[in-house]
Amino acid sequence: MAEYSIGVDLGGTNLRAAAIDGEGRILKKISTPTNLAAGPDAVVADMVTAIQQIRNELGVRDLIGVGIGAAGFILMEKGVITSSPNLPGFDDYPLRDKVEQRLEIPVILENDANAAALGEKWMGAGRDVDDLVLLTLGTGIGGGIIIGGRVLHGCVGMAGELGHMTVVPTGNPCGCGNTGCLEKHASATAVSAMAKLMGLGDDLTSEQVYRLAAEGNEKARVVFRMMGQALGTALANLVNTFNFPLYLLSGGMLPAWDFFAPAMFDEVRRRSYVYRHSPTRIEKAILGNEAGLYGAAYLPFQARALGRGS
Amino acid sequence: MAEYSIGVDLGGTNLRAAAIDGEGRILKKISTPTNLAAGPDAVVADMVTAIQQIRNELGVRDLIGVGIGAAGFILMEKGVITSSPNLPGFDDYPLRDKVEQRLEIPVILENDANAAALGEKWMGAGRDVDDLVLLTLGTGIGGGIIIGGRVLHGCVGMAGELGHMTVVPTGNPCGCGNTGCLEKHASATAVSAMAKLMGLGDDLTSEQVYRLAAEGNEKARVVFRMMGQALGTALANLVNTFNFPLYLLSGGMLPAWDFFAPAMFDEVRRRSYVYRHSPTRIEKAILGNEAGLYGAAYLPFQARALGRGS
Repeated sequence: MAEYSIGVDLGGTNLRAAAIDGEGRILKKISTPTNLAAGPDAVVADMVTAIQQIRNELGVRDLIGVGIGAAGFILMEKGVITSSPNLPGFDDYPLRDKVEQRLEIPVILENDANAAALGEKWMGAGRDVDDLVLLTLGTGIGGGIIIGGRVLHGCVGMAGELGHMTVVPTGNPCGCGNTGCLEKHASATAVSAMAKLMGLGDDLTSEQVYRLAAEGNEKARVVFRMMGQALGTALANLVNTFNFPLYLLSGGMLPAWDFFAPAMFDEVRRRSYVYRHSPTRIEKAILGNEAGLYGAAYLPFQARALGRGS
Repeated sequence: MAEYSIGVDLGGTNLRAAAIDGEGRILKKISTPTNLAAGPDAVVADMVTAIQQIRNELGVRDLIGVGIGAAGFILMEKGVITSSPNLPGFDDYPLRDKVEQRLEIPVILENDANAAALGEKWMGAGRDVDDLVLLTLGTGIGGGIIIGGRVLHGCVGMAGELGHMTVVPTGNPCGCGNTGCLEKHASATAVSAMAKLMGLGDDLTSEQVYRLAAEGNEKARVVFRMMGQALGTALANLVNTFNFPLYLLSGGMLPAWDFFAPAMFDEVRRRSYVYRHSPTRIEKAILGNEAGLYGAAYLPFQARALGRGS
């Protein structure tokens, strides 16, 4: 049996775990609902059960470690989620240590968007580069920055909070305290809110707005153009800052690419001298929901290669 | 004699060179006007003369290399300035190779703001950290990003173009093609332009606007508050992106700190969740004009430590 690690994606809806070997082959995958109502200890128990089930099947000795990607602000050194809108009850919960104590193997906790960015770098659209930025366009917007093949963490692990970049200084209010955050102008939630403001309907999902746009509804198309402009402004700032070769977009809003991408590219081109003078790709990520599992599973391999962990 | 390197600061007005040893002691310093009218070959000749004068005095054998900081977009691998508003005639000029051929020692070409950031990291306000961002607030605004003690270059060397971050999407037009670039809202030039718009005078320098503010002129104070807001928006984006421990400001606008800093800090605090939840310092740089010389001189030492150069 080859060595493998287990990547865990702890989301507000589903708890998923996958055993992946050093070449990126998925050996086994488990998915179970996240039982948030039962509290964090119960969720940890479910996670440990899933991991042990995989370990019993694939062999105890060949498991080199566990990586967990979780939504929320993560304190890397402590292995703690400080706050997470999607994981109520987990604030300041010592998730890493709880899992490590139960399993007696090294566990690495990482932000879910960072894990997805690392997954795309390892086995996805970023395989051929060492430096990239990923934006996950879902209910909110997450960001992950890979420099030299590794996640940029900053001093406590809060780097890459790209959904909270200001793109419209006097724009929509955000729960973070700011106005005009990217995620209030370019997420699925923002698309729904803009559709409401346009009089398209009070409770349309972003998918419904997408369908209206596809049917030729001009107001729905304006909504996606505005989304594209906001994204383009954010990307121009990122390109001017990093001069990286690759910027990836992923998440539930990707199917609307044809409606937001033209305005996005117009805006990046106009706002970034660096974009116009340096080879820069802005593309769709390719691993979808699996990116986070790949990235989480890669963490123990990378830690060992860098001389840490196991 | 101890080993030393020579740092060169090639500006539009002055050409300066300094011999600095591995402990950051300045051994000798030369300054001469930059004779741009005579063309780049003549400027290179002046530069080589200055370097040889230092080398003859301090010893040929102990000089480990030369670092040059120059204003403009730099292609790192080629050692070429692609374009520089402050150095007319140097577009696409192979500056590094020209100097290297004449001196027969390793030469490293770097953007001037990057060199200043590295200088502050080595011997200035950033000595105690490995990660920092520097903004130089002068006629324009430059940026330098230090990660793990080294300059972030991106794929062709254009990273850190922070003066061209969009902070007011529909704001003042910029020569780069964008509207609302940071440097059109927070540089000395921007302060002069805002003073004109406020009716304070058609040709006031930023120093004159500063003096008006110091005398209690409310319009002049509004100008600096707007400058502070623009800076704060840019810094909030940088803090959310990097989560670094330190952000430094330098340049000719620093004396106006008391007039722009309060609005700047208000804006960062409001716009950055990361700033409010992670230890983050925003401070004045301390090396002034010498930062670029220190950083340029450090480049050969760092290249050797990293196993490249000489």
